[in-house]
Amino acid sequence: MERISGMMRAVREKVPLVHQITNYVTVNDCANATICAGGSPVMTDEIGDAPMMTGFASALVLNIGTANARVVDAMIACGRAANDAGVTVVLDPVGVGATEFRTSAVKLILEKVEVSVIKGNAGEISIMAGEAGKVRGVDSAGGSGAMAAKTLAERTCTVVGMTGPVDYVSDGKRTYSLSNGHELMGRISGTGCMLSAVVGCYAGTKGASVDSVAAAISAFCIAGELAGEKAQGPGTFKPLFFDALYNMEGGVADDRRRYELCTVSM
Amino acid sequence: MERISGMMRAVREKVPLVHQITNYVTVNDCANATICAGGSPVMTDEIGDAPMMTGFASALVLNIGTANARVVDAMIACGRAANDAGVTVVLDPVGVGATEFRTSAVKLILEKVEVSVIKGNAGEISIMAGEAGKVRGVDSAGGSGAMAAKTLAERTCTVVGMTGPVDYVSDGKRTYSLSNGHELMGRISGTGCMLSAVVGCYAGTKGASVDSVAAAISAFCIAGELAGEKAQGPGTFKPLFFDALYNMEGGVADDRRRYELCTVSM
Amino acid sequence: MERISGMMRAVREKVPLVHQITNYVTVNDCANATICAGGSPVMTDEIGDAPMMTGFASALVLNIGTANARVVDAMIACGRAANDAGVTVVLDPVGVGATEFRTSAVKLILEKVEVSVIKGNAGEISIMAGEAGKVRGVDSAGGSGAMAAKTLAERTCTVVGMTGPVDYVSDGKRTYSLSNGHELMGRISGTGCMLSAVVGCYAGTKGASVDSVAAAISAFCIAGELAGEKAQGPGTFKPLFFDALYNMEGGVADDRRRYELCTVSM
Repeated sequence: MERISGMMRAVREKVPLVHQITNYVTVNDCANATICAGGSPVMTDEIGDAPMMTGFASALVLNIGTANARVVDAMIACGRAANDAGVTVVLDPVGVGATEFRTSAVKLILEKVEVSVIKGNAGEISIMAGEAGKVRGVDSAGGSGAMAAKTLAERTCTVVGMTGPVDYVSDGKRTYSLSNGHELMGRISGTGCMLSAVVGCYAGTKGASVDSVAAAISAFCIAGELAGEKAQGPGTFKPLFFDALYNMEGGVADDRRRYELCTVSM
Repeated sequence: MERISGMMRAVREKVPLVHQITNYVTVNDCANATICAGGSPVMTDEIGDAPMMTGFASALVLNIGTANARVVDAMIACGRAANDAGVTVVLDPVGVGATEFRTSAVKLILEKVEVSVIKGNAGEISIMAGEAGKVRGVDSAGGSGAMAAKTLAERTCTVVGMTGPVDYVSDGKRTYSLSNGHELMGRISGTGCMLSAVVGCYAGTKGASVDSVAAAISAFCIAGELAGEKAQGPGTFKPLFFDALYNMEGGVADDRRRYELCTVSM
Repeated sequence: MERISGMMRAVREKVPLVHQITNYVTVNDCANATICAGGSPVMTDEIGDAPMMTGFASALVLNIGTANARVVDAMIACGRAANDAGVTVVLDPVGVGATEFRTSAVKLILEKVEVSVIKGNAGEISIMAGEAGKVRGVDSAGGSGAMAAKTLAERTCTVVGMTGPVDYVSDGKRTYSLSNGHELMGRISGTGCMLSAVVGCYAGTKGASVDSVAAAISAFCIAGELAGEKAQGPGTFKPLFFDALYNMEGGVADDRRRYELCTVSM
């Protein structure tokens, strides 16, 4: 796989503008994660304002965490503006499957917008991969996780990033497991949302690919490791995490990275 | 009173889902306080989404801090869903009495929803206790604070938690004063909102009672003491507070706790 | 110029209530910056609630960072309530010029509301100063920055605060350059928004003037220096910044302050 260091340098040189329609719980963390990863965040969801902003951006991140009907409309308008302008679209389907509203919102977005990357947790990606993922998952070196990621990537023609104790990334052809991270990442609110912002930085700079999404996930999780080694708990973890992401050296990231190619057969 | 340690263990074992419709100023802090206290937060206020989420939760926390007309409707819909599903409802009447909108919102919620816990600051609880609280407060070992908490608890058939330099908790029969805390807790935004989230964790795990609400308040204020002893100011206080809440040992909490039964006669 | 120390003391004694209709990205930071600077924040944007709150406040801060149509209506209603009650209005025209929506919102606010202070970054103030600023900027000891600030101040009859590597403040008659700060201030989300909140504290206490706006900017930037000297990155910078703002001694602020009167001729 392409090295993290080169990608990281490209992101920091470009300073990609990442337009994010995200939830109001973690939006500040998303803005700071974007800056620390080398990008520049802009948040707006007014339908009369946001699509114009999308046109200036390198990536658009749609996160349905606290979406309401008004915001879903804005997401679709911005998604179409992104498609018109060749802007990479990242979808974070927070809580899909938990409620009908969320499931419908995700369906509608995928129907109306050409999404390049879907980044979700194991539960969300498995639900979106659906029965197909389960039924076909008869043999997978990466286990059911690799199968779900691969299945959803194939079906949606996207790059899928799936997070959990082990992360998976797949474009339907190549599927990797990624094994960096720290348990405190799961003890703060917003880890998944921040990762989507960072994926926006990388995919917005280098295009959406297994390589760019994997580099974003690995860099993010390595920052988590570096912070986790110093933190006394979830509270001190977050500022240390931002520092680690901001100060990360490409060589350190390349050295610490752990991944494996998965063989997923049907 | 029931010990904090046992309650704390129960919360951490159950990991109660706490659905929060709260304000956009402190919502991230509320999410992190919930996690650090042992719960799992979910925030959504779209009326087409939120009541379904309430059904999965152990507690629903309604905080009117930045509520608008749309959000008040969602609060009522979720409150009724909570009542149907036997989910504990905690109300934080931020700024009640300051404006007509807030006073009406609180009145409407109490009319339409069976609320189990009202958690507010001294001003808010006193206003809600109203003249009755003042007139009847002829003798109170806890002073007018204990009287206001007791009066409101009686009138609304709830458990009332009232915060200030000294905190009070009452179910109308038993009223306690609680004396833990640190002055830096009043120097950050969101202390009261975070406490409501933690009350949601405890009342959602053990049911709404003087014991569970008092345990939540005491654990929260002890975390404040532990953080306050190390912090250099409000900025470093917050991460240390989250660490303290997350790392708190039951035995330490039991040892540090300070409370007294109030005799409130009329 | 009037010393920072005296202003700072006045703010801390008054504890001015600062009503803020700001964006959901940085609203928590704005609340905490307000507290650390000595004020008391209140956020509400429900048109049925907010104008009444404005009436209790010492200052109203309008930040269009993530404004939508509903919120712009609330801003105007609150702005008029502020004018009726003699409450100082601070406008932060985030992203003006970038989209038609933002430009129209700023125009509408300036048309309907008597604004006392406009606080923006170099790009925003330059755009608002427009051609006039450029054409007339034939000679300026402060460069084009001083000219833009002065031009906009004259045209709008406001005090203008313009931030950048060097900050400028002007009431159209006197224009100063202010040279405190730290590069990490540009590596977190919300620096500009927090500054507007602090300007609200100072202008709400001492009235809108070159002196009060300059004192707010300088105090804020000196807190940035103090925090930047200790921080390891943007993550640890923010808590240290709040501590520095909260703990700042007037004498230290006076000593560290760097400013110069600009001669801006046409």
